[in-house]
Amino acid sequence: MSKEKLSRRDIILGTGKLAVGAAGIAVVSAGGLNLLSKADAKETPLPWPYKKLDPDEVAEIAYHDWYKVLCGGAVISGIFTLLKKKIGEPYTSFPIDSFIWMHGGVVGWGTMCGTQMGAAVAANLIAGPGVLKNGEMITNEVIQWYTDTALPIYVPKKPKITANIPKTKSGSPLCHVSVNKWMKAADKGFWTPERKDRCARLSASVAAHTVKLLNEYWENGKVESDLKIPAQIYNTTAQHNCSDCHGTKVPEVNTKGNK
Amino acid sequence: MSKEKLSRRDIILGTGKLAVGAAGIAVVSAGGLNLLSKADAKETPLPWPYKKLDPDEVAEIAYHDWYKVLCGGAVISGIFTLLKKKIGEPYTSFPIDSFIWMHGGVVGWGTMCGTQMGAAVAANLIAGPGVLKNGEMITNEVIQWYTDTALPIYVPKKPKITANIPKTKSGSPLCHVSVNKWMKAADKGFWTPERKDRCARLSASVAAHTVKLLNEYWENGKVESDLKIPAQIYNTTAQHNCSDCHGTKVPEVNTKGNK
Repeated sequence: MSKEKLSRRDIILGTGKLAVGAAGIAVVSAGGLNLLSKADAKETPLPWPYKKLDPDEVAEIAYHDWYKVLCGGAVISGIFTLLKKKIGEPYTSFPIDSFIWMHGGVVGWGTMCGTQMGAAVAANLIAGPGVLKNGEMITNEVIQWYTDTALPIYVPKKPKITANIPKTKSGSPLCHVSVNKWMKAADKGFWTPERKDRCARLSASVAAHTVKLLNEYWENGKVESDLKIPAQIYNTTAQHNCSDCHGTKVPEVNTKGNK
Repeated sequence: MSKEKLSRRDIILGTGKLAVGAAGIAVVSAGGLNLLSKADAKETPLPWPYKKLDPDEVAEIAYHDWYKVLCGGAVISGIFTLLKKKIGEPYTSFPIDSFIWMHGGVVGWGTMCGTQMGAAVAANLIAGPGVLKNGEMITNEVIQWYTDTALPIYVPKKPKITANIPKTKSGSPLCHVSVNKWMKAADKGFWTPERKDRCARLSASVAAHTVKLLNEYWENGKVESDLKIPAQIYNTTAQHNCSDCHGTKVPEVNTKGNK
């Protein structure tokens, strides 16, 4: 679409060629250029266009971008930076920087590790949203993989620091659990260059894995996953590591009135 | 800007009048309409424009939209639906529906309750992103309020169901903790109309509170908050309810090498 000339007929008839992306669609009238009413601007239909990406290339971008936009932002940026080049809109105008808030499990509260929320943003835009639909199935697979895998696995081509960064398995999607297990294994505090570089490498690892799943989705046209989401298993929203918080006294889940 | 005519000078010189929003900016050349190279499309600078909103109006929209886009989507939609009308772009083209994944603490994993993630999306776009900056301070205030307040407080003008919906204090930003405390108090399972309506009213309550803080920010030009984020207090990312998971054996946080 870029630099393509549109005929007067395309313009007047409003053919598909004019639907270039998120906003600011323009039409030419006899008198000059009129912008459509703001209310007429439309969002790009979901799912967004995609082209297969190289997971290693994505990972290296995510690694370096962690130092600018932290974990969630880095995963989004790792994926969208290449899609901006390969596709352009609607990726070009997506406000990646606004997602810095995902750091530390949402502004330092230690809930969901931001890397997985960044993956969710990208997966649901690219594979489409909806309960148990493709974007959510990819998100679910990424979270399960995150909890089961000793991370970080990505080793940057141009590392910021050369210290040994151990791998740890979180068993949980929570930043608090994940980062404290790592801090214990590495014998390093939270405000150290090593912990920061661990989170940068973690962002790179998650971005690469997300892209691997997105590439498979793109090739097959659907997500191959028979992994249930936890709410389907437990009749409430939950992680799988119940005893980590509840010990041996895992409470019964109230199922009264369930349909 | 809507329907405003642009002079040839505006078009050729690329004056500010052409910077209409997220994407799809067009220029007229002698030969017809050319679209700018995709790479030239720019995102709307952060923070995004804002106009004060009525929290009750926002809440009612969020309540009803929960039934379409669930918790995180409902908070974003409650706020952005009115901003689409009052401002237009960049709100018009923002992909609200893609955030359904926030439901159930991210696709049913019970981590951060989606309402607060929806609040974070809106607050960081409107008040601006960055560690400890305005958007994060609003997010932090919303989370603290969420954990401390018996919710839901919003009573819809047009409720979907008329059953009694009790209020419960979560003490935690986690969906798992929040919804299970409510299910216990209400004696209702997760897959009940009452639990769903509770989450719809919760979304409405959080959207209204977020807008109250956004209105104050807009009036004062800054966020009045001396609330620290948990990572500043604990030297790791964390919630404040340590003993809920750790009992009396709250582990020491590793601070080795901290700067």
